[in-house]
Amino acid sequence: MTNESVVSAEDELIARYFKPLAKHPGAFGFSDDAAAITPPAGHDLVLKTDGLIAGVHFFADDPAEDVGRKALRVNLSDLAAKGATPLGFLLAIALPKDFSEDWLAGFTRGLGADADAFVCPLLGGDTDSTPGPISISVAAFGVVPSGTMVKRRGAKAGDHVFVSGTIGDAALGLRARKGELKLGAAMNDHLVSRYRLPQPRTALAEVLRAHANAAMDVSDGLVGDLAKLCAASNVSADIEAVRVPRSDAAEGALASDCELIKPILTGGEDYEILCAIRPARVDSFRAAAEKVSVRVTDIGRIVEGGAPPRFLSPEGQPLTFLHTAYSHF
Amino acid sequence: MTNESVVSAEDELIARYFKPLAKHPGAFGFSDDAAAITPPAGHDLVLKTDGLIAGVHFFADDPAEDVGRKALRVNLSDLAAKGATPLGFLLAIALPKDFSEDWLAGFTRGLGADADAFVCPLLGGDTDSTPGPISISVAAFGVVPSGTMVKRRGAKAGDHVFVSGTIGDAALGLRARKGELKLGAAMNDHLVSRYRLPQPRTALAEVLRAHANAAMDVSDGLVGDLAKLCAASNVSADIEAVRVPRSDAAEGALASDCELIKPILTGGEDYEILCAIRPARVDSFRAAAEKVSVRVTDIGRIVEGGAPPRFLSPEGQPLTFLHTAYSHF
Repeated sequence: MTNESVVSAEDELIARYFKPLAKHPGAFGFSDDAAAITPPAGHDLVLKTDGLIAGVHFFADDPAEDVGRKALRVNLSDLAAKGATPLGFLLAIALPKDFSEDWLAGFTRGLGADADAFVCPLLGGDTDSTPGPISISVAAFGVVPSGTMVKRRGAKAGDHVFVSGTIGDAALGLRARKGELKLGAAMNDHLVSRYRLPQPRTALAEVLRAHANAAMDVSDGLVGDLAKLCAASNVSADIEAVRVPRSDAAEGALASDCELIKPILTGGEDYEILCAIRPARVDSFRAAAEKVSVRVTDIGRIVEGGAPPRFLSPEGQPLTFLHTAYSHF
Repeated sequence: MTNESVVSAEDELIARYFKPLAKHPGAFGFSDDAAAITPPAGHDLVLKTDGLIAGVHFFADDPAEDVGRKALRVNLSDLAAKGATPLGFLLAIALPKDFSEDWLAGFTRGLGADADAFVCPLLGGDTDSTPGPISISVAAFGVVPSGTMVKRRGAKAGDHVFVSGTIGDAALGLRARKGELKLGAAMNDHLVSRYRLPQPRTALAEVLRAHANAAMDVSDGLVGDLAKLCAASNVSADIEAVRVPRSDAAEGALASDCELIKPILTGGEDYEILCAIRPARVDSFRAAAEKVSVRVTDIGRIVEGGAPPRFLSPEGQPLTFLHTAYSHF
């Protein structure tokens, strides 16, 4: 018995897998108890936390690299929708005692690659054991010039409703991943990859600050999230369902089963931007989005009133949905 | 089937239990996707995340109020040790599908009471379901005047080693909670309450900024945490074990079994401050700590060399420990 074993297995784990990600000087190489950052003067800090749990948000046998990247990306998506530039993040991870080091190596590889790609460094963390599934919690911080965070509230009647990218891929990808959809291999792979690896629209952050009356990211399904945006702004919306942008793969799936329009519109995990743009700014918004190579699509209008938004068929009939959004409970 | 059920069970849960805690204007009443705060000019942000998992960090039948308070307090303890004034926090909580609303009501009651007491408002959060145990992750933020965060590194030979409060209560409290210690009811209750509800030394934060060469909180055990502080500073320490401050309850337990000195010194969860003070500042440090009513005790000296710190018996013999600190793996 000696006092010499002051480096625990937990410390070794942190040194091997997390310390290589501690590139920001304020992370102190994870050799301190907290991180320190100097926020840029004249800016507000935008704060967001979102987590992933094995068996709930990802499959235990999903590639660990993708899980690491998704853990950061779901938070970056929120920061982008709020107009914020990423500053850094904290990570809390709970691992079963019998976790695989290969998994952790892959997870941190993916996480580190995206921390670099999105210039959002890991600042600190907490590593615990758990009798439950792998649980990951990210708290991400971004900055906006003071007072310019793009709110969920603020949409006005007459505003054009835009979404970025395509909607419904992740919801169909989840079904494909579970074997519930029969698709060709290429279509299947596209949809599953969109479920596994969202594309945060960080490039659109500044464009939103300059143009959007209101914005949020679509994480719980377009129908439910638009309802939240409208409720916050005390308005409603009329959306032409056919104009909601879909990938070729989603279009193919829809061609074989038109009922799939419902999971496309309500399924969630799109991590695309939903925003309201006043008519006079629509052309400028389109041009600015094109300049940063993000596809944006006009899907309808904000209208007066407090009723839930309507998603209209080509015949002008409102579609109806049993569940409008994902709920954990 | 209508579009009207836009408020999910998850939304209702958040509205009922978490929204009452959203008192900071930057939390937007939890009706936005992120929080926004304006950090005070000329200050650095100090960031920390630490979590609690049922069955690992607390017992499933511990009072929910105490779990809520402890979740915030373990983070406040780190902020205090770094000299930081609390600014706010984010909460990620994962609940089993069959969670009890009574438990959540108690948890948020305790959490909200301490958010008020320590002026550290809840800014945002994430609520998930989990097939595992209740898991809570807090990311807490504090501020220090720029460049003044108290580091783990910086202790110098000759510095006096101080700890706040008493050491070992939580480790004995955990044993008492498991029925492994036979003690009188009052002693038992004192130790268990110290395990359940740490006392963050927020009042000492400014005193540490003004006096400490290095500091950290004692969360993984005094022996292991002092070793970390010494390693970061490339020094060692000689501690007189008998001077390590103990509560009457810990003293009583020790009187019946002198081997308990080991869990007292290595058991962890003390959430007291460990710091190094240069000799010329010791009197001023003592006076400043007394002024904010925090007991501090001089337990030994920082010495040259890279060996692990020695805890010496009254006869000058170094004590030996099988495990020097808590490790999750």
